[in-house]
Formats: sequence, structure tokens, C-alpha cells
Amino acid sequence: MTGEHSSKQYDMDLETIRSKVLLMGGLVESQFQDAVSAFRSGNVAQADQIIKADENVNNLEVSLDDACSHLIVKRQPAANDLRTVMATIKVITDLERVGDESTKIARAAKSISERGVTAINHYETIRVMAASAGNMLHDALDAFARLDGKQAIKLIAQDEAVDHEFRSIMRALITFMMEDPRTISGALDTLWVAKAIERIGDHAKNIAEYVIYIVEGKDIRHTDYAVSRLDERTAS
Amino acid sequence: MTGEHSSKQYDMDLETIRSKVLLMGGLVESQFQDAVSAFRSGNVAQADQIIKADENVNNLEVSLDDACSHLIVKRQPAANDLRTVMATIKVITDLERVGDESTKIARAAKSISERGVTAINHYETIRVMAASAGNMLHDALDAFARLDGKQAIKLIAQDEAVDHEFRSIMRALITFMMEDPRTISGALDTLWVAKAIERIGDHAKNIAEYVIYIVEGKDIRHTDYAVSRLDERTAS
Repeated sequence: MTGEHSSKQYDMDLETIRSKVLLMGGLVESQFQDAVSAFRSGNVAQADQIIKADENVNNLEVSLDDACSHLIVKRQPAANDLRTVMATIKVITDLERVGDESTKIARAAKSISERGVTAINHYETIRVMAASAGNMLHDALDAFARLDGKQAIKLIAQDEAVDHEFRSIMRALITFMMEDPRTISGALDTLWVAKAIERIGDHAKNIAEYVIYIVEGKDIRHTDYAVSRLDERTAS
Repeated sequence: MTGEHSSKQYDMDLETIRSKVLLMGGLVESQFQDAVSAFRSGNVAQADQIIKADENVNNLEVSLDDACSHLIVKRQPAANDLRTVMATIKVITDLERVGDESTKIARAAKSISERGVTAINHYETIRVMAASAGNMLHDALDAFARLDGKQAIKLIAQDEAVDHEFRSIMRALITFMMEDPRTISGALDTLWVAKAIERIGDHAKNIAEYVIYIVEGKDIRHTDYAVSRLDERTAS
């Protein structure tokens, strides 16, 4: 087997894995959208379905981790190629966690629905934040699909907006609870939903960081790299 | 270079990585203990120190990930050996997240301290849960150090006790908030601390699952494997 042949095989195997990761990404994206929609409608059957479907996400995680290990053993990639596989394994972990967070939203939807009507418009409280995090997740998967480092850099900055929205939701809910202590249980359910959405924003940011690692070969976790790159482009 | 020589080199490199992971484990363990102690004492300087020291944990994550990649490229491990490296990479991710959660506890300690005296004994509320999660983390690192699958199986079951404690803390805090709405902000800080501790229990459980993956070659994530193994031993 020539080196070129082996490298072609590697490329093909990697492409198979990447398309399955994107499949998993599409699945968790719709799980998240469905969870928000169940939170809006109070549809308990839909919430149950989301909780049950998390099993599929979990199974995808295990089988994709396995496929990545097989790829490494069979193709013994060089440092550059291995970087992509490693980053892909991390992306898979983040996607599985997005699935977990959607499950939590679905559980809160059930809890609020079972508790009945309250003074809080629960969905309205989280609507903007859910849309922001949903866009981040979508863009992160898109950046991963197209290996688009520029888009990845842009969306890392967006995570701060989601965190900001989370803090303002928390303040609003505290006001509700103080004015009417009967809203406390329901407000906490909404707070957990906001927390889950904030984590989904974090996971989208992580995915963006791995895309940059693949494209630029730089491990920018725990750095201000994305911010400085954005500044550069704004200045020029 | 003979196969045996290469395998010896692999073992040595892996042992170096493993001892650094345990160093990282020791660091996050003391970060967690210090965070709980700052939460107890309201010592803002200690809390600030914990938040600052998270940088060291982050740096360890990046350099250990890098060391694992180098090991794979240089030693090209076979499937069995690769399994250990892969699980080690996942353990590193979980340890970094434990560092993040300790930072959150330190932030809540500051926030409560800055808010002044309240009707809630914040530390007492989380004391038992913090001890349980601390033990889990310690035992998980110990199981990783000794590659002790039995201990790993045992501690996976303990995570349910931590989750149970979390739910009872939440109920207690809701009661406080309803009785005296002035406690709401402080109670929420304590709730975030309880949530962070609950996540640390989750990460300890994840580490235990990776130990079992290394020792037994079984990927038991998302299964009841540990429960059934415990049942077996109780029955016999």
C-alpha cells in the first residue's frame, strides 16, 4: 500500500465520520428546537419524546468515538491529520452534552405544564436567549461542516451575548419571585431552562474553538485569540 | 527498533502522562475543597485565588491533550493501548470542567459574602452534599491511579445519592425563599453552588466510567452496566 493510497483511505474514512457527526449535530439541533417548542406549548407528550430520543444521541456518541479510534489504529494518521480526529472526538462530546441539556429543558417543560398556570410567561422569558443559542449551535455546526475558521471566530464572540441574556433573565426572575413568592417553583424551572440554554451556547463555542484548531492548528481554548482576531478585522 | 522496545517506550510515555493527569486531579481536588472552604468562611481573597488558579488547570488541559496526541503519533499504539489514551483524554476534559465548577463556587462565595448576613446558613445547606461529591472525586482519581475497576463500579452508584441530595437542597431552598422573599438572591447563590457540586459528582462518575473502559474494555456510558455488576456482587 503506498502512502498516497493510505492517505486517500484516511480521507475517505474521515469524511464518513464527519458526515455522521453532522448527522448527530442535526439531531441535537432539532432536539433543542423541539425542547424549546415543548416548553412553549406545554406539550407533555412531545417532552417525553425528546427525553426518550436522547438515547439515539447517546448511541451515536459511543459509536462515533469507536469509529474515531478505529480510524487512528487503522490509518495511523500523522500529527496534522490526527489533530482533526482529536478535535472531532471533542466535538462529539459537546454534541452529546447538548442532547443532555435539551433533555433538561424537556423535563422543565413537563414540570411547568404539570404545575398549571402561573403569573410568569415562561416562554417569553427565554425566547430571545433560546433563539441566540440556537443560531450559535447552527452556525457552529455549519462552520464544522465547511471548516470555516472565520465563521467560528465570529461566533465565539456571540457567546458573551448569550451569557449576558442569561444574567438579565435571572434578574427578571428574581423580581418575579420577590413580588409573588407563589411563582418561585415555576420561576426556578424557567431558570434551569435558561441555564441549559446558556450551556448550549458554551458547547457551540467549544465546537467553534475545535473548528479553529482544525483549520489553523492553534489551540485557542482559554485564550482571547478569537477576540483579538475579531478586533484585527474590525480595525482593518 | 523492535516492537518490544517501542511498546516499552509507549508504556513509559503513557506513565508520564498518567502521573501528570493525577497531578491535575490533585490540583482540581484541592481547588474544589478550597472553594467549599471559601464558601463556608466568606473569605473573598481565598475565592479570588481559586478563580485565578483555574488558569493552571486550563493550561494543564491544553498541554496534556497535546502530550496524548504526541504519544499517538510517535508510538502508534494498537487498539488496546489506544483505548487507554482515548479514555485519558476524556478524563482530562472532565477534570478541566471540575475546575470550572470550583470557580463557580468561588464566585458564589464572593457574591454571598458581599451581600452580607442572611437568614440562611448557606454552608450548612450544602455541607453533606459537598462531602459526598468530594469523596466521589477522590475515589474516582484513586480508581484511575490504581486502575481499580471494582472501586469505579461502586462509585458510579454513589452519584445517585448526590443527585438526591441536590433535589432535597432545592426543596429546602424553595421553602426558605417562600417564607422570606428577602432570602431569594442568597438562596439562588447557594442553589448555583449545589448545582456546581452536583456536576462535580457527574464528572467523578464520568471518570469512573472511563476507568472501567480502560480496565474492562467496555464502554458503559449510558448503560446500567455498573448497577447490574453491583447487583451481582450483592447477590453472591
